[in-house]
Amino acid sequence: MKAFNDLADFAREDIASLIELATRLDHSPEPEALRGKVLSLLFLSPSLRTLASFQAAMVRLGGGSFVISPDMSIHGLETRPGIVMDGTAAEHIREAVPVIASYGDAIGIRAFAERRSLEADLAETEFSALTKLANKPYINMESAMNHPCQSLADWKTMDDLGIPASGGKFVLSWAYHPKALPLAVPSATVHMAAMRGMDVTVLRPEGFELPDSIMDKARSAAAASGGSVTETDDRQAAMQDAHVIYAKSWSSTKHYGDRAGDEALRRGLDNWCVDEPWFEAARDDCRFMHCLPVRRGVVVSEAVLDGPRSVVIHEARNRMLAQMAVLHQMLGGSK
Amino acid sequence: MKAFNDLADFAREDIASLIELATRLDHSPEPEALRGKVLSLLFLSPSLRTLASFQAAMVRLGGGSFVISPDMSIHGLETRPGIVMDGTAAEHIREAVPVIASYGDAIGIRAFAERRSLEADLAETEFSALTKLANKPYINMESAMNHPCQSLADWKTMDDLGIPASGGKFVLSWAYHPKALPLAVPSATVHMAAMRGMDVTVLRPEGFELPDSIMDKARSAAAASGGSVTETDDRQAAMQDAHVIYAKSWSSTKHYGDRAGDEALRRGLDNWCVDEPWFEAARDDCRFMHCLPVRRGVVVSEAVLDGPRSVVIHEARNRMLAQMAVLHQMLGGSK
Amino acid sequence: MKAFNDLADFAREDIASLIELATRLDHSPEPEALRGKVLSLLFLSPSLRTLASFQAAMVRLGGGSFVISPDMSIHGLETRPGIVMDGTAAEHIREAVPVIASYGDAIGIRAFAERRSLEADLAETEFSALTKLANKPYINMESAMNHPCQSLADWKTMDDLGIPASGGKFVLSWAYHPKALPLAVPSATVHMAAMRGMDVTVLRPEGFELPDSIMDKARSAAAASGGSVTETDDRQAAMQDAHVIYAKSWSSTKHYGDRAGDEALRRGLDNWCVDEPWFEAARDDCRFMHCLPVRRGVVVSEAVLDGPRSVVIHEARNRMLAQMAVLHQMLGGSK
Repeated sequence: MKAFNDLADFAREDIASLIELATRLDHSPEPEALRGKVLSLLFLSPSLRTLASFQAAMVRLGGGSFVISPDMSIHGLETRPGIVMDGTAAEHIREAVPVIASYGDAIGIRAFAERRSLEADLAETEFSALTKLANKPYINMESAMNHPCQSLADWKTMDDLGIPASGGKFVLSWAYHPKALPLAVPSATVHMAAMRGMDVTVLRPEGFELPDSIMDKARSAAAASGGSVTETDDRQAAMQDAHVIYAKSWSSTKHYGDRAGDEALRRGLDNWCVDEPWFEAARDDCRFMHCLPVRRGVVVSEAVLDGPRSVVIHEARNRMLAQMAVLHQMLGGSK
Repeated sequence: MKAFNDLADFAREDIASLIELATRLDHSPEPEALRGKVLSLLFLSPSLRTLASFQAAMVRLGGGSFVISPDMSIHGLETRPGIVMDGTAAEHIREAVPVIASYGDAIGIRAFAERRSLEADLAETEFSALTKLANKPYINMESAMNHPCQSLADWKTMDDLGIPASGGKFVLSWAYHPKALPLAVPSATVHMAAMRGMDVTVLRPEGFELPDSIMDKARSAAAASGGSVTETDDRQAAMQDAHVIYAKSWSSTKHYGDRAGDEALRRGLDNWCVDEPWFEAARDDCRFMHCLPVRRGVVVSEAVLDGPRSVVIHEARNRMLAQMAVLHQMLGGSK
Repeated sequence: MKAFNDLADFAREDIASLIELATRLDHSPEPEALRGKVLSLLFLSPSLRTLASFQAAMVRLGGGSFVISPDMSIHGLETRPGIVMDGTAAEHIREAVPVIASYGDAIGIRAFAERRSLEADLAETEFSALTKLANKPYINMESAMNHPCQSLADWKTMDDLGIPASGGKFVLSWAYHPKALPLAVPSATVHMAAMRGMDVTVLRPEGFELPDSIMDKARSAAAASGGSVTETDDRQAAMQDAHVIYAKSWSSTKHYGDRAGDEALRRGLDNWCVDEPWFEAARDDCRFMHCLPVRRGVVVSEAVLDGPRSVVIHEARNRMLAQMAVLHQMLGGSK
């Protein structure tokens, strides 16, 4: 495996194999599989779960990792091409990325969306610029529009819980948040659930439609897997017979990168906080999913988050297991 | 071992076994004992020795660790229950702690006293709230009123140096410091020395008495071990025939959490700096102990700290060995 | 090996052995060589390559490391002797260094020049004060006037590329930079190339002469190896038939530690940016070397840095391999 960048790069059987491997590694540890192997971890955006779960994953497989973050250890990295570096940044990504990559057998990179242009972010211009410099197998630890490690963990979580793929109803719901957040998780999630063969509904207020290219990609995946993808702002209809509600806030796509416009649109939407009444028409065992971190009382009520529907800790633990499977395949633990 | 939280949870023979194991691991390394095992390290308060010694301990046993600190990698953690999270904190400990714990086989947690209420701190309300969320074996890396890893290391240090348990005279002395410091180390230390069977004197100026419940706990330990615990402000009497003086500054308990009151009381006490004249009535080989970090020329004179009485580096190194023993027992290296 | 502090402490054959070992470890990994061994890493100055490459090196050899940096985890370290510590620093290096060292089998220390006095920096007063406290084998990760890990990596890079030792022409050129930078790399580099037996020219504008003691040391090495060392400000002459140009900015030695004086001298020297025309008289295959980080368009043009002459990534990767060889010999992987 040369890259783990997008679930769309894999066949469904490949994903099934990764999940099977993740489960096996959970029950039958392989602390010699990657001995002496090194994972470089480059965080251009902050992290808790990703930081912790990748380090833990490498230790469990007998290898190790190191972390580079501009805030932690260096005075910022210049990213602009063709620049005369007479400002504060002392190093350019054109040196930093290949050097950091050269110390590892693979590299994980995290870089959130720049949010200057929706087109540039949809094209993953920044992330591609970074991975092209790496010259090593790489893992997308969250880019502008993708988060494949989260999606693999979420897929495994639904498998673990017996949530049906074919015929399973998956609601991806926008939720309120005081700030405009990236589109990476919703974009990855709608595709993941569609690729799993589920009937996916994107529930969101007007102005928060997911970009067309994201929806088209999910619909292609659904066509291949026997699932479906629809979009609505009708909460009642969306939640009808749902197996899962996956909540996430994201920025307005109408006012992408425009803080004032986004805030104006967001105003008055603080009732988009997932609470018990949302589940009235859902299946009794409808689950609540979220990638974390989550703001209690804002994105979801305490009752739901602490109640039996919530599987957020299960999802988070699966991050480590899913990544162990990816690393195992990528770094030669698997033949 | 499900928790290493308080020496009082263990019998004296258990402590002896841990110290024996620590010594054995020092002389006969076991770099395969914990292969593939992960220790999660959560620092809600800063650290040098603890941070370094736990990481080193895991490597020496063939495993590894990862560190999460709110300053390093995340934008603060919310701790208040029932809060609507519309402020700056993006994550609540109710998710962060179980997730971090889920990546490890055990978790170490450090959280200093909040210093808002002496009762709450004596009850370890904050620390208990954290460990209850962990759902994994845990290690207290310093809480409001305890520091069992330091105490185990100090006990081992006295064993190493042949300082008698029964009949050994141990002086825990308050020392001057410009700031009000936590009660964790003095509280743990008075109990440790009493449990070891020593005759313990707490030497402190008025207003700096240790809380009754701490003294009562130490007296119970002394009753079981054949030791004793007394309290005084008479330096001459306290130091008479002492085997050890353990210096530590701590906040006033009369003005707990009240900075102005504490400072007023502290004023004029800067002669509580342990210096060679203090040792006049002590045994010739009386040792100087301190948990570090220590302010030279404030808490203790340079002559004493750099002289032959001082065993502070020995204590600090024993932190690593003591923790290796705890981890070895907790994570299955020991049968 | 008790210390890796200065290439001058080693015979040429010792360096050859280290480079051979580095190459062997690159092709034949030894993930069991240092199992359970710990390297303490103390950074009193910031780092990217050094931080990453030492951590990766220890993992590749089966051991591990921990990092202590005053910015990351502690409130600064006091370094002044005889001080009454009533300010902000809570710990003195007299405790911190031996404690940190005691957790490892060896310690790496980085401390840039203080730049208060050229004499003190040339005498390595600060760095010696630190290593004397360590009481463990130590590695110089860059001191006021040395950077032996960089030099070993650079030597290996020239061997890898077939750049001749005897008869090879090596130009160490000053380059423009907005700030006054340390003398560590140029001092180590001129000595390294001379010790390798090359004909070394130091090319620099007036006022940026390297200190006499540094030049004398390099000339002694050249005398023993059959090389030579000269100094000039004539770019054309210096570059004639050069095999290598190694660019680096450094502070004025005439105005050492005097920011205003240095800046005045530096003004108008921004044409000291290595660009393609510099290579006119050089050998066609003349290489461009730099220790990184490097400011694009300031120290070197983009065309040169991204072109075929540049071997900066190769040098940086060799940091890890060179350090693996040093660690292997120091920590007992080699017999």
